[in-house]
Amino acid sequence: MTDLTAVLDQLDADTDNAIARLFDLVRIPSVSTDPAYADHCRTAAEWHRDDLEGIGFTARVADTPRHPIVVGHHDGPDGAPHVLFYGHYDVQPVDPLDLWTNGAPFEPKLITRPDGTQMMHGRGTSDDKGQTMTFVESCRALKQVTGALPCKVTVLLEGEEESGGESLPPFMEANRDELKADIALICDTGMFDPNTPAITTMLRGNTACELTVHAASRDLHSGMYGGAAANPIHVITRILSAMHDDDGRITIPGFYDGVPELPTEIKAQWDALGFSHAQFLGDVGLSEPWGKHGYSALEHVWSRPTAEVNGIWGGYIGSGFKTVIPAEAHAKVSFRLVGDQQPEDIITKFKAFVEDRLPADCSVSFNLRGGGVATVMPLEDPAFEQARQALTEEWGKEAAFIGCGGSIPVVGELKNRLGMDSLLIGFGLEDDNLHSPNEKYDLRSFTKGARSWARVLTALGSKAA
Amino acid sequence: MTDLTAVLDQLDADTDNAIARLFDLVRIPSVSTDPAYADHCRTAAEWHRDDLEGIGFTARVADTPRHPIVVGHHDGPDGAPHVLFYGHYDVQPVDPLDLWTNGAPFEPKLITRPDGTQMMHGRGTSDDKGQTMTFVESCRALKQVTGALPCKVTVLLEGEEESGGESLPPFMEANRDELKADIALICDTGMFDPNTPAITTMLRGNTACELTVHAASRDLHSGMYGGAAANPIHVITRILSAMHDDDGRITIPGFYDGVPELPTEIKAQWDALGFSHAQFLGDVGLSEPWGKHGYSALEHVWSRPTAEVNGIWGGYIGSGFKTVIPAEAHAKVSFRLVGDQQPEDIITKFKAFVEDRLPADCSVSFNLRGGGVATVMPLEDPAFEQARQALTEEWGKEAAFIGCGGSIPVVGELKNRLGMDSLLIGFGLEDDNLHSPNEKYDLRSFTKGARSWARVLTALGSKAA
Repeated sequence: MTDLTAVLDQLDADTDNAIARLFDLVRIPSVSTDPAYADHCRTAAEWHRDDLEGIGFTARVADTPRHPIVVGHHDGPDGAPHVLFYGHYDVQPVDPLDLWTNGAPFEPKLITRPDGTQMMHGRGTSDDKGQTMTFVESCRALKQVTGALPCKVTVLLEGEEESGGESLPPFMEANRDELKADIALICDTGMFDPNTPAITTMLRGNTACELTVHAASRDLHSGMYGGAAANPIHVITRILSAMHDDDGRITIPGFYDGVPELPTEIKAQWDALGFSHAQFLGDVGLSEPWGKHGYSALEHVWSRPTAEVNGIWGGYIGSGFKTVIPAEAHAKVSFRLVGDQQPEDIITKFKAFVEDRLPADCSVSFNLRGGGVATVMPLEDPAFEQARQALTEEWGKEAAFIGCGGSIPVVGELKNRLGMDSLLIGFGLEDDNLHSPNEKYDLRSFTKGARSWARVLTALGSKAA
Repeated sequence: MTDLTAVLDQLDADTDNAIARLFDLVRIPSVSTDPAYADHCRTAAEWHRDDLEGIGFTARVADTPRHPIVVGHHDGPDGAPHVLFYGHYDVQPVDPLDLWTNGAPFEPKLITRPDGTQMMHGRGTSDDKGQTMTFVESCRALKQVTGALPCKVTVLLEGEEESGGESLPPFMEANRDELKADIALICDTGMFDPNTPAITTMLRGNTACELTVHAASRDLHSGMYGGAAANPIHVITRILSAMHDDDGRITIPGFYDGVPELPTEIKAQWDALGFSHAQFLGDVGLSEPWGKHGYSALEHVWSRPTAEVNGIWGGYIGSGFKTVIPAEAHAKVSFRLVGDQQPEDIITKFKAFVEDRLPADCSVSFNLRGGGVATVMPLEDPAFEQARQALTEEWGKEAAFIGCGGSIPVVGELKNRLGMDSLLIGFGLEDDNLHSPNEKYDLRSFTKGARSWARVLTALGSKAA
């Protein structure tokens, strides 16, 4: 029996204890956005410190202006790579409580489905306590069986991922030497489907802004001024609707600068995934991808930039009718970025696009939000292929390199501040109800997730040989 | 001294008593939209009945499904015309109370301005209790001085003008013979400016509808679906912005059917009014009329049809950002109609315009409101010239025939159900704060208004000679 086999057996044998440990952690209501839960956030951080020390890490809880950050270190064999594992111990709020029909959010429990499969129910069972513990449990088993870890491991757990995350970037800056490693491991993403493990190698960036178009100095009665006065709702709808052409392409001048075409081999890989576009769209009542420029839904979401109006409002929006011409109209617009698109540059171009279209007597004001650039992982780094191989062995199905339509800001921070690429490996499923009532994590995600990390760490450590 | 001069002197001599009577009426909080004030509405109706009987009318309070209607009759000389005076005793709600900085809404008082002019402050001092009482006071003085009225007069006062007015049309139908007269007199409009009396001879019609564009079956995350899924905000902004061309003309096919060009003589009259477009627009922070089709602001508002989005909403409209692609987006659209434009026809054309532009996977639902057609008074009826002359004599400045951008539904009802045209003569000013806190009526509007009606009734009655 190889060491790895013994480690995997140990993980299987220790499953009940691993569940108990995760449930202890889930019972700590570490909601980071609400200051009333600050003590619980600290308790969760201390819980992780103690747990890591129990495994053999040297660990500490570091204060920040808001919630503390946990840092743990464990040596590895000479010549083995140094990995930095990132996770977060804070969770989303749980309102509305009455929609938690499977049980209270902070009283975790194991639920057996009619088909015999099991899921762990509770806030954070998946995002990100459960996912984080897949990694920690793999380290525990590796230590118990082999007395060592196959890589030098640093663990970095923050407590503000769900509420702004302002403390992490300066902490990275201040502790650059301590945190710098060869590659980052992050367990905060999902499988491609319940049977197909995935490494997320492309993440879109994003940025957003709110705009207000101002016309008359006060609301006007349309009987008095209708036809004679500028209506800012008309102005904002004209401007926003001009943002896409009839084919759905974005018309903001220079918007596509730095947007690469998808490499043929990546497109071929994605096509081979057998993704059901019909089901993806059909699940939400749609039948065809938006626009007419020939991209599949998957290409759209993983590799194409977007400009979306996420909110619009102006004038009278109550019940009945009121013939008002409002003084202002508003919209929130967000952009998903790919390739070399820079958030500041995109916003500058959008502002010019809007200002160029303002008619007489109208003005516009903007309320900006920052954002982050897109990330594409360097697949030529052998770590990606080693990890893919390890995942494929655990799940019996080839692991996929996938994209992600959303943004994970820490990936950009790790790259920009510490120069590190990230191996994004997660075991979440579509129906985990992240950020919603009835959050859950399949027991299979948890147990095979831990086994996956044992395999991945071992594979990465094999570099040492 | 002619009879008319004596009547005008009597009105002047009786001013304090007239103010006291109006204030009695204003103290009755006859807010028609709130059922809690139903008893007060009845009290106001009874107050008018008693007051009319005191003058010598035979009057009654007629029940309706909601608020009662007052009808009064007074004979006139043989051969004199029969006029129907319409007014309303109900008032708008008064919220927010804390903005009534000049005094409580139902505790009317006379306020002297720094320049020595006076105004009557309180809800209904203008709309429409004060305006109605200008007519009633003229009848009182005519009776006191001459023992008669120069015309046969029917008074019709409703109590639902500010809250739907559903009871009046069936009441008209049921009492057609009793109410039918040669012409209607209405005192619910304004002066052209503080020194220029006006007869409103053109009223725009209107109609409105709310539309909802539906796309996906639920709200979507833009990281997950952005670029791939139809965004109903994009769809509704594209459709609504296509409703006007670059010059501001409405593009709904057939929209302008039945819209007449303004007769040259009317345009010449309006041009002669010396209306300050710069001030009209400048007062609300604008500098030029909307659109580029060559109409002045006055022509726009009095004689051109419009399509206005009065409200729009969809997606996330709270503070901060949420990258949602909503399932629905909404708008409220209203139309001002002129000439022969029919409300039902315009809505049918608008619905077709929207439906023709719906992309795949989207649907639309409509919530309609009725409306009314535009009205143009027959200036060839000598009553208009007689009334204009009478007003000109009272104010020392030629009375103007003007348009009105808004709609006064009762005018259409009087025309359609009773076959009567309306002489719309009112003494309200721009700054009367109708429907707002601090409603007022200039004392000059009240006293010269009553004098104006004495002159107008005398002039109309001169037909008898």
